[in-house]
Amino acid sequence: MASVICDSVLVTGSNRGIGLELVHQLVDLPKSPGHIFAGCRDPGGPKAQELRDLAQKHQGVITVVQLDTDSPDSIKEASNLVESKLNGKGLNLIINNAGVNIPGSLVETGKKEMVDSYTTNVVGPMLIAKNFHPLLCKAAAQFPQSSMSCSRPAIVNVSTLLSSITRCPENFYRSPMYPYRICKAALNMLTRCLAEDFRKDGILVASLHPGWVRTEMGGPQAPLTTAESVSGMIKVITSLTEKDSGTLLDWEGKNIPW
Amino acid sequence: MASVICDSVLVTGSNRGIGLELVHQLVDLPKSPGHIFAGCRDPGGPKAQELRDLAQKHQGVITVVQLDTDSPDSIKEASNLVESKLNGKGLNLIINNAGVNIPGSLVETGKKEMVDSYTTNVVGPMLIAKNFHPLLCKAAAQFPQSSMSCSRPAIVNVSTLLSSITRCPENFYRSPMYPYRICKAALNMLTRCLAEDFRKDGILVASLHPGWVRTEMGGPQAPLTTAESVSGMIKVITSLTEKDSGTLLDWEGKNIPW
Ligand SMILES: NC(=O)c1ccc[n+]([C@@H]2O[C@H](COP(=O)([O-])OP(=O)(O)OC[C@H]3O[C@@H](n4cnc5c(N)ncnc54)[C@H](OP(=O)(O)O)[C@@H]3O)[C@@H](O)[C@H]2O)c1
Ligand SMILES: NC(=O)c1ccc[n+]([C@@H]2O[C@H](COP(=O)([O-])OP(=O)(O)OC[C@H]3O[C@@H](n4cnc5c(N)ncnc54)[C@H](OP(=O)(O)O)[C@@H]3O)[C@@H](O)[C@H]2O)c1
Repeated sequence: MASVICDSVLVTGSNRGIGLELVHQLVDLPKSPGHIFAGCRDPGGPKAQELRDLAQKHQGVITVVQLDTDSPDSIKEASNLVESKLNGKGLNLIINNAGVNIPGSLVETGKKEMVDSYTTNVVGPMLIAKNFHPLLCKAAAQFPQSSMSCSRPAIVNVSTLLSSITRCPENFYRSPMYPYRICKAALNMLTRCLAEDFRKDGILVASLHPGWVRTEMGGPQAPLTTAESVSGMIKVITSLTEKDSGTLLDWEGKNIPW
Repeated sequence: MASVICDSVLVTGSNRGIGLELVHQLVDLPKSPGHIFAGCRDPGGPKAQELRDLAQKHQGVITVVQLDTDSPDSIKEASNLVESKLNGKGLNLIINNAGVNIPGSLVETGKKEMVDSYTTNVVGPMLIAKNFHPLLCKAAAQFPQSSMSCSRPAIVNVSTLLSSITRCPENFYRSPMYPYRICKAALNMLTRCLAEDFRKDGILVASLHPGWVRTEMGGPQAPLTTAESVSGMIKVITSLTEKDSGTLLDWEGKNIPW
């Protein structure tokens, strides 16, 4: 993929799993973004060692940013830091990847599980969209004539097949996951609202299902490696156009019904 | 409508608006339910006067039940009270009507607005389904051969047209309402999950859009009176069959896409 994906990108939850692999592959692209902001809730902690090493290797390109998507203050501060690093330029792409899957069946699900999942998986992406909106608009203004794409500005919300209300009956019994399914369906509505809201600003917004991926969340029996999933995701992100705004696609570019 | 809608019904948020009208019309049916449990978060408060008067008029049929859908303890206690009143019989129908619409455009929406809306509109109905599940199963056992319907047992989640991710682009600009749309889409996924989960128990679960109704929430410019909306809703609820489980219908029985 020799085309420039974008000038600058923020990936949340990038210290492990799909997020870390996104940073790996983005920085290794032939024409990699000039700025990769790697959001991580505990940049100094033991779970961020690999990300720190990677950032060290690509100084000046990868900036690790403290970003706890549960914390409005952390999101605000991260947007200030990103703004200062961009030196007057806008931010092109946000990949809202940070997420949690608190299992359960109905019996295992209480108020706390529901609210915690919603906070991380939906409220976080909403607050990120809101706080980074001015930086996305700034990026849009750099390409006033272009049509929508990920190199103009875009937000990609990492969703899941399990967010599909339509397809729920196919897979419910294998993985009930009330809190996760319910909040990822909510995330899709956020995608759809933002797509409408930000259309006037030239900002594309889409939901993306990474496939079932071998990570801590996906588990060891998942069929896809992070490398396979992320290379698909990057292909899809690079080819997003106006018609994809407000849709849910999978890592192979196939549309998933709401 | 001369057929028996059901033996027993619980309506949440029944002290005003659509919920109060539901209790009014249910008790006035030619063959009204033997037990109408009228959930209300502040049964002694000034906003429950009309409900108290109605319950007074129909003693032995209408029982006002303290039920704050934000409070897991209140839900648990309500289920204990309903169980004791039913004297060993099951509960046939739950109408999860209680709801809030915390407006918002993106600018007006913060973490609190999102979490509060989700708690009332989604977590509440989830906890009610969970806590009343044994009573619904007991009602199902009374009709072991019947197919699904609202007089076997059923849960109706009061949703909205604005919950439709598919139809969001049609109406987003008129009413952005981020917290409300997002959590009502989540409520639809709850409906769908419960429909799958409870199918084995013979419990029907559906989402129902009451139309745009003149209440505190709907506002004075809404085209429908509560009487018109609720008479439609009761017709739809009475005619629910197995094929409607896990769907979103409007007050005229028309299907709304997810
Ligand atoms: N794996 C799959 O099969 C699969 C399938 C469909 C969708 N997805 C979605 O893909 C995304 C990534 O999943 P994954 O498989 O890579 O999961 P993962 O291995 O569990 O990693 C989750 C990442 O999110 C971060 N995170 C969680 N809560 C956070 C918070 N409050 N603030 C900031 N970061 C937070 C974690 O950071 P910490 O290390 O600090 O916990 C970690 O970096 C998620 O949105 C998930 O729902 C995954
Ligand atoms: N009106 C419309 O046009 C419209 C359209 C689509 C969908 N809906 C849905 O229809 C349902 C009823 O709406 P409405 O128009 O009748 O609204 P409303 O006039 O504002 O009445 C809301 C009812 O819900 C109760 N409630 C709110 N939070 C509660 C809680 N935590 N615990 C218990 N009860 C609570 C209120 O009780 P308090 O008096 O204690 O606040 C009140 O009884 C809602 O689910 C709404 O989303 C309405």
